Amino acid sequence: MNNSIIRYILGYVLKIESILFLFPCLTAIIYRETEGFYYLFTAVVCGVLGILLTLKKPASFVFYLKEGSITTALSWIVISIFGAMPFFLTGEIPSFTDALFETVSGFTTTGASILNDVEALSKCSLFWRSFTHWIGGMGVLVFLLAIIPLSGGSQFNLMRAESPGPSVGKLVPKIKTTARLLYVIYFGLTLIQIIFMLAGGLNLFDTLTITFGTAGTGGFGVKNSSVGGYSPYIQWVVAIFMFLFGVNFNVYYLFIYRKWRKALSIEEVRTYFVIVIVSSIIIFFNISDTIHPISDAMRHTFFQVSTLMTSTGFSTTDYDLWPQTSKTVLVLVMFIGACAGSTGGGIKVSRIIILFKSIKKELTSYIHPKSIIKIKIDGKPVEHEVVRATNVYFVTFTVIFSLSVFAISFDDKDLVTNFTAVLATMNNMGPGLAGVGPTQNFGSFSIFSKFVLMFDMLAGRLELFPLLLLFHPAIWKELVTKKKPVIKNS
Amino acid sequence: MNNSIIRYILGYVLKIESILFLFPCLTAIIYRETEGFYYLFTAVVCGVLGILLTLKKPASFVFYLKEGSITTALSWIVISIFGAMPFFLTGEIPSFTDALFETVSGFTTTGASILNDVEALSKCSLFWRSFTHWIGGMGVLVFLLAIIPLSGGSQFNLMRAESPGPSVGKLVPKIKTTARLLYVIYFGLTLIQIIFMLAGGLNLFDTLTITFGTAGTGGFGVKNSSVGGYSPYIQWVVAIFMFLFGVNFNVYYLFIYRKWRKALSIEEVRTYFVIVIVSSIIIFFNISDTIHPISDAMRHTFFQVSTLMTSTGFSTTDYDLWPQTSKTVLVLVMFIGACAGSTGGGIKVSRIIILFKSIKKELTSYIHPKSIIKIKIDGKPVEHEVVRATNVYFVTFTVIFSLSVFAISFDDKDLVTNFTAVLATMNNMGPGLAGVGPTQNFGSFSIFSKFVLMFDMLAGRLELFPLLLLFHPAIWKELVTKKKPVIKNS
Repeated sequence: MNNSIIRYILGYVLKIESILFLFPCLTAIIYRETEGFYYLFTAVVCGVLGILLTLKKPASFVFYLKEGSITTALSWIVISIFGAMPFFLTGEIPSFTDALFETVSGFTTTGASILNDVEALSKCSLFWRSFTHWIGGMGVLVFLLAIIPLSGGSQFNLMRAESPGPSVGKLVPKIKTTARLLYVIYFGLTLIQIIFMLAGGLNLFDTLTITFGTAGTGGFGVKNSSVGGYSPYIQWVVAIFMFLFGVNFNVYYLFIYRKWRKALSIEEVRTYFVIVIVSSIIIFFNISDTIHPISDAMRHTFFQVSTLMTSTGFSTTDYDLWPQTSKTVLVLVMFIGACAGSTGGGIKVSRIIILFKSIKKELTSYIHPKSIIKIKIDGKPVEHEVVRATNVYFVTFTVIFSLSVFAISFDDKDLVTNFTAVLATMNNMGPGLAGVGPTQNFGSFSIFSKFVLMFDMLAGRLELFPLLLLFHPAIWKELVTKKKPVIKNS
Repeated sequence: MNNSIIRYILGYVLKIESILFLFPCLTAIIYRETEGFYYLFTAVVCGVLGILLTLKKPASFVFYLKEGSITTALSWIVISIFGAMPFFLTGEIPSFTDALFETVSGFTTTGASILNDVEALSKCSLFWRSFTHWIGGMGVLVFLLAIIPLSGGSQFNLMRAESPGPSVGKLVPKIKTTARLLYVIYFGLTLIQIIFMLAGGLNLFDTLTITFGTAGTGGFGVKNSSVGGYSPYIQWVVAIFMFLFGVNFNVYYLFIYRKWRKALSIEEVRTYFVIVIVSSIIIFFNISDTIHPISDAMRHTFFQVSTLMTSTGFSTTDYDLWPQTSKTVLVLVMFIGACAGSTGGGIKVSRIIILFKSIKKELTSYIHPKSIIKIKIDGKPVEHEVVRATNVYFVTFTVIFSLSVFAISFDDKDLVTNFTAVLATMNNMGPGLAGVGPTQNFGSFSIFSKFVLMFDMLAGRLELFPLLLLFHPAIWKELVTKKKPVIKNS
C-alpha cells in the first residue's frame, strides 16, 4: 500500500478544510459572535496539521483503486472529526458524539439533525452547518482533483470512490478538466439560485444557507420550521432547484455546448422526470381533498417529492400526517434517489434502470433461452461489469440496511422509526417517518445507534465499498505493516 | 408453444385434485357433515374436466422451460380456483375472493387467513384447508412427475419451476426417481411427526391437520389460538418438526444412505442451524426477563424462530408484543427463510450465502483487482449463471415487494401492517406484525389488495419468474395464436 500518498492527500484535505473554516469566521465577524474564535482556532489546527502532513512529498504519486477508496473514506472521516470540533468547543452541542453526528450528516448531505432547537445556534455555526452540505455535495476530493496534479490512473481511482452512480461519469476524457467543469456548473447553479432567492426578498443569510442545503441536496435549515415559514415563492424556488441539483450534471455540460437534443434524450434524466411527475400526480390526488387551496396542495406535493427523491430533506409540511399511499410513494422515491452524477443520494435512477432491465432480460431468457440479450442504456450496451457491480451494490445496500435496522433496534423504538431512520441516513436524506419524521430529530438515539447511523451516512455517500474496505482485515494489515498480502486464487 | 401438453398436464392435475377431494369427503362421513356433498360435487367436476382434458394425447411430450413455467403457474392457479369452490359452496366463506385467498394461502403453504373464527368451520373444511398445505408443500407437479412419463428435458423444466432454491436439487440423476424419493422422505417425516403427536395424547383430527400444516410449513391451525392451546410437549414437537421440514431434503437422502458426515457438512444446512441458534439466543435474552418460567421463554423463543424462519406461521404467543429487537430479528429471519430443497419459503439460506459471498468477492476485488475469485459452496465453485440468477432473483423480489406495498397502501393501513403483510405472503409465512400480527387476520383488506397478496403468495411459492411470465405479452400472443414470435437479438 502506498501509505505516503494517503498521508499526503489527507494533509491536503486538511489544508482545504482550514481555508473553508474562514467562512464561518467571517460570519462571526459580521454578526460579532465570540464563537468565531473557535472556528479560527480549529482552522489553525487544521492548517498546521495539513502543512506537517504535506511537508514530505510522497514517494510515488501513483496509486490504485484500493488506495483511492481508502483515501476517500479516511478523508471523509477526518474532515468530519475536525468539522465537528467548533460545535463542541463552543458548547453549542455539548456531546462530541452529537457534534460528530451533525457534521457527518452535514458533509454527507444527509441533513439528519440531533438538534431540538436549531434557532438557538450562533449564526457562524448555522453557516458552517449549512456550508458543510455545499462542500460535501460535489465532494472534497473532486475539488482536490481540480487543483492538485496526480497521474491519470490515480485521479480516476479517487474520482471513482467519491462520485455517485454505477459508473464514473467523465464529462471529458481528462479527469482534471472534468472535476473543474463539475465545480463550474455547481458554482453557476448555486449562484443562479442565490439570485432567485434574493429576488424573493429573502435576507442574505437565509438565502446562502438554504441555497447551500439545496445545492448539496443536504437539507439542514436555519429555522425550526425548515423552509415551512418562507413564502410560497421561496418554497417553489427551493423545490425546483432541488430537482435541478438531482439531475445528472452531464445535462448541464451538454447545455453549455448547446447540445439540447442530446441532453434531453438521456434515458436516466427522462426516467427521473417521469418518476417525479408520476409520484407527484399520485400524491396530489391522494391529498388534494385535505389540503386547500389547490395551489398549496400542488406546492406541498412537488416540494416533498422533489426533496425526498433528491435526498435533500427540507420540508414545508408534516408529511408524516399524510395518507398511507402518499407516505408509501415517498418511501419508494426515497429508495430510488436522484440521478447518478448529481449531488443527490439514494440508490440512483440509473441503477434502478439497470436493475429493471435485468429483470426484463431474465424474463425474456425464459421465452428465448438461446438468445443473447444485452442490457442497453441510451442505445449503447451496458458493460457486463457494470451490471454485475450494480447487482452487488444493491445486495450490499440491503444487507447493510438490514443489519443497521437490527443494530439500532436495541433502543426499542418502533419499526417505522428504525426502518426510515436507516433509510434516511443511508440515502443521505435526513428526515424519515414516525420518530424521525420531519418534525422530529435524531437526538434521542443511543450513542451506539448514532455511530451506526453515522456509518450509514458515510456508507451511503461513498457508495458503500470504500467505507466497507476500511473494515477489511487485509487493509489494516497493509496499513500497519506496509506489506502486500499474498494474493489468493490468482 | 406446445399448447397441447399444457392442456394435458392441467387435465392430469385436475384428476389428481379430484382424488384429493375424497379425503375431506371421508372426513365428512366420519363427522356426519352435510358439507361433504359439496366436496364430492367438486371432486366430480374436477374429475370430469380432467378426463376431458386428457382424452386426447398431446402432439408431443417435449417442452421447454417456457412451457414448464407456464404449466406450473397455470396449474397452481387452476387447483386454487377449484380448491376454493367447496369453501364457497358450503357458504362457510361467503365471498369467493375470500375463499380463493384462503385456498391460495393453503396451497402456497402461506397460512395467511381471512377467517376471524376458524373453529366455526366444519371438520371437513378444516381438514381440506390443512390438507392443501401438505399438497402444496412438496408440490403437485413434483408428485405428477413421480407418476407420469415425460421425456428428460421436459421433466427438468417442470421441476425447475416448482422446486425452491437457486438451482434444482436433483438427489439422483433421474428426475422421476428424485421426485419419488422426495415424496418418500416427505411422507416418512410426516408419519413420524404424526406418531410423536399422537404419543402426546392429541386427538387424531388435530394431529393430522397440525401435522399437515407443519410438514408443508403452512401454518393453518384448527383452533383460534393456533397451537397456543396445546401442551408444551406438543408445541416442542411442532417446533422441532417445523425446523426439520425447513432442512434441505438432500440431508435426509444422505441419511438414508448413511452418509452422515457428508449430510452434516452441507454449508447451507450448517448456516441454517447457526442462524436459528443465534437468533434464538438473541431473542431469548431479549425476552427472558418478561416471560417466566425460563422453560416457557425457551419454548416460545425457539417456536417463533422456527415457525418464522421456515415460513410456517403457527404461533404459541403474541410476538407482536415482544421488544423491538426481537421483532426485528424475527422480520430478518422471515426474509431469509428456510433451506432450498425443503418445503419452507423465503429467499432461502443458500441464496443468502451466495449473496454474502458476492459482497465478499466484491470487496476482495478492490484489494486485488486482477485476481479471479470464484464463489464456492461446499468447496465447489458455484456456476456463474447461478450467481447471476440469484442476484436477479433478489432484485426482482425487492421490486415486486415494493410495488405490492404500494398497491395495498390504498387501504390506508399503517406501514408496518402493509410491509409485513407483503413479507408474510411473498415468503409464504402467514402472520406478520401489527394489523396482520398473530392475533389478527387478512379479512379487512380490500378485494384489490387481496388479489395483490394472492399474487404475492403464488409468486413467492413459484419463485417469481414462472408467475411473472404469465403476464408477459409475448406469452399471451403465443398462447392465443400458437405462433412462435420472432426472436430478437439472436
